[in-house]
Amino acid sequence: MNFSEFFPVWDKLKIEEREKIKASAFDRTFRKGTLLHRGSDECTGLLLIRSGQIRAYTTSPDGKEITLYRLLERDICLFSASCIINSLSFDITLSAEKNSEVTVIPADVYKKLMNESAPLANFTNEIMASRFSDVMWLIEQIMWKSFDKRLAAFLIEESNIEESLTLKITHEAVGNHMGSPREVVTRMLKYFADEGLVTLSRGTIAITDPQRLNSLALS
Amino acid sequence: MNFSEFFPVWDKLKIEEREKIKASAFDRTFRKGTLLHRGSDECTGLLLIRSGQIRAYTTSPDGKEITLYRLLERDICLFSASCIINSLSFDITLSAEKNSEVTVIPADVYKKLMNESAPLANFTNEIMASRFSDVMWLIEQIMWKSFDKRLAAFLIEESNIEESLTLKITHEAVGNHMGSPREVVTRMLKYFADEGLVTLSRGTIAITDPQRLNSLALS
Repeated sequence: MNFSEFFPVWDKLKIEEREKIKASAFDRTFRKGTLLHRGSDECTGLLLIRSGQIRAYTTSPDGKEITLYRLLERDICLFSASCIINSLSFDITLSAEKNSEVTVIPADVYKKLMNESAPLANFTNEIMASRFSDVMWLIEQIMWKSFDKRLAAFLIEESNIEESLTLKITHEAVGNHMGSPREVVTRMLKYFADEGLVTLSRGTIAITDPQRLNSLALS
Repeated sequence: MNFSEFFPVWDKLKIEEREKIKASAFDRTFRKGTLLHRGSDECTGLLLIRSGQIRAYTTSPDGKEITLYRLLERDICLFSASCIINSLSFDITLSAEKNSEVTVIPADVYKKLMNESAPLANFTNEIMASRFSDVMWLIEQIMWKSFDKRLAAFLIEESNIEESLTLKITHEAVGNHMGSPREVVTRMLKYFADEGLVTLSRGTIAITDPQRLNSLALS
């Protein structure tokens, strides 16, 4: 594992700190669809994403979901180690959207080092600030953007991540990303299809006019 | 100014760090209704709230508002010093809801100390985590709670802060807290009045059945 590649603060750590991380970190792979972390009861550790794609989402008491952000290669997941920060009082669920390879730095090791190391504590601050910014962006989307624009933005983002105009995703899964009932998603997708923006078939949404869909997303 | 009272990390700082803070910090008072901070263009510094009440909110491009959280006595405002953390990429507006007294630790002084001090960096982490938790709570409210329950919860919270069942607040101001149009607020308040939960008069909402309003908020 090349820490300096996946853990940008590496070069600012002392040699003995690096040794402690090296000695305790371990690799894990998660198959697509696996739950990595559920709520605050678990505190595995910091996850350095070496490859794959991980979805962070929150759920309602009756099982509805909304995606908070995605973690891709070179991202770092802090909330899988939420016990290292006392004031964090919310639950996040993490699941692998693609087969993913991660390196885990155990929470207890990380917490101990962070308590002593200003560079590590400041680095942790920056990670949290990134996720906080993602979530603030989400609030603004939910509050001020109409559903058609949010859906257009979601399809464009998904298409960018998948590097394909043909998305293999069910209407229900789209709803779970957006925190919306399936019926609402289906209705808007039908409207998009009528407008010539997409074509729909079972389990697939094909973007047929990416330029116009993008304009809608940005409007 | 008694720092150890309003700045809990004080006792963990080195003497020279305390001296730097003492030498640069200054007091300010903000009259009710004053804007303390607008967006990321300003970076005043960390605010230690000695008395009063400050509202943190976000605005839409066309001027709609939603309250993110409130800062009361002994709270600390980090986002008035958002330039100390590079990865923060969102804008928050702060305004005084009551006459407020704050002590400001200038952003450049704080940033310099935080870069070197693990206790200060970890303390900053905890402040950010608290606000992050507030905002996650808000997302859950917006996403999963119906408007009647959110409004009931807002009125109860407001009544607790004001220590009064009679709230001097316009329907428009309630709407700005909740991110909802005034008409929607007025309609629901009329429904609450019909149900005997509140009575309404110009610029005033009086809670007449706090127990039932509370049950609605918690349901």
